[in-house]
Amino acid sequence: MPNITITAFERSPDRGKGLARDMRVRWALEEVGQPYEARLLSFDAMKKPAHLARNPFGQIPTYEEGDLVLFESGAIVFHIAERHAGLLPDDPDARARAVAWMFAALNTVEPPIFERDMVRILERDEPWFERRLAALEENIRKRLGELSASLGEADWLESEFSAGDLLMVTVLRRLHGSGILEDYPNLLAYVARAEARPAYQRAFADQLAVFTAASGGR
Amino acid sequence: MPNITITAFERSPDRGKGLARDMRVRWALEEVGQPYEARLLSFDAMKKPAHLARNPFGQIPTYEEGDLVLFESGAIVFHIAERHAGLLPDDPDARARAVAWMFAALNTVEPPIFERDMVRILERDEPWFERRLAALEENIRKRLGELSASLGEADWLESEFSAGDLLMVTVLRRLHGSGILEDYPNLLAYVARAEARPAYQRAFADQLAVFTAASGGR
Repeated sequence: MPNITITAFERSPDRGKGLARDMRVRWALEEVGQPYEARLLSFDAMKKPAHLARNPFGQIPTYEEGDLVLFESGAIVFHIAERHAGLLPDDPDARARAVAWMFAALNTVEPPIFERDMVRILERDEPWFERRLAALEENIRKRLGELSASLGEADWLESEFSAGDLLMVTVLRRLHGSGILEDYPNLLAYVARAEARPAYQRAFADQLAVFTAASGGR
Repeated sequence: MPNITITAFERSPDRGKGLARDMRVRWALEEVGQPYEARLLSFDAMKKPAHLARNPFGQIPTYEEGDLVLFESGAIVFHIAERHAGLLPDDPDARARAVAWMFAALNTVEPPIFERDMVRILERDEPWFERRLAALEENIRKRLGELSASLGEADWLESEFSAGDLLMVTVLRRLHGSGILEDYPNLLAYVARAEARPAYQRAFADQLAVFTAASGGR
């Protein structure tokens, strides 16, 4: 039996498109070849004491390994990257830069992209909807322009694939279907390059299988 | 001469209240006793190639030490914490938990608090202002309630002060003057406990001195 257990949605709100944050942890574990078990939680169960003891904010994913209980997908991916080869460069300076991209993905690039999804769900009928969406998309494009300029013709943000790319790609994927990413061809190719990795594909299939099983599908 | 150089605003938009993100880096460097030099940048200079080479998103702070150039305040604080004793526990599991609180501060607690400040500056004259603010404050209170329950009667988020507390406190300080923090007495005491640390006070004085000098003194 695997000695790593993560938590994930019992019924993923994204219908298995890999946008739930357990995807980041599944992908990281596949990159380093560590088996794991997924404990599936209902929205009710996420707010119960047993889960709040794992994550005070009642969110997924969490990570359990022996006595260690972790929360926050960024911290879990970093923990996996620190313990196993393949997600952080060996050179200390290059490693620190990869960590900077991890924080940039979650603290600089993700907020307006995540907020756009929330606004599209929660504020669609509000009188300000169109203007809010336009303002958010302007912020998103500003960040994508800067990211695109920094990536240039390179395959990855630093010289080799790292946990920084893993997190950045999970953030950018949230723009699939928006038409926005298409204006930055090098970012579109960057996301496709990451999605073609065998570890990504295994993780994607596993989180999709939860949804198709839950929905009684094939 | 110190061999660490950080960047900060030449004219801080918060008028020296310690809300600019260089405060996090100054505080971390004071906690571990490392001298540094601050290079002050105008808003124009932040968008010039010389600074974009340090930070692709044209933000402060950045961190230079020999050949290493870092961006993202979270990543810089982590780098300092990794290289010097005092900001991360020695025990590997406790260290991983402290890193989880770093990500929680920046990715779960900060977004609605930072957004509230932006809305108060940019959307004050919009017809939706009051409702937007109320919705954000509801999100903020949800997170503060969860954080307050998790902290309980403890002094710090884990057993000793860590980089997780340092980042969390810089996030919560943004609520000073809102009246919101006052509804969570243990969080208010937690912030005051951190602000009383000598390292915090040295860092605060140094970032305030930039503003008083720039504004022609008091």
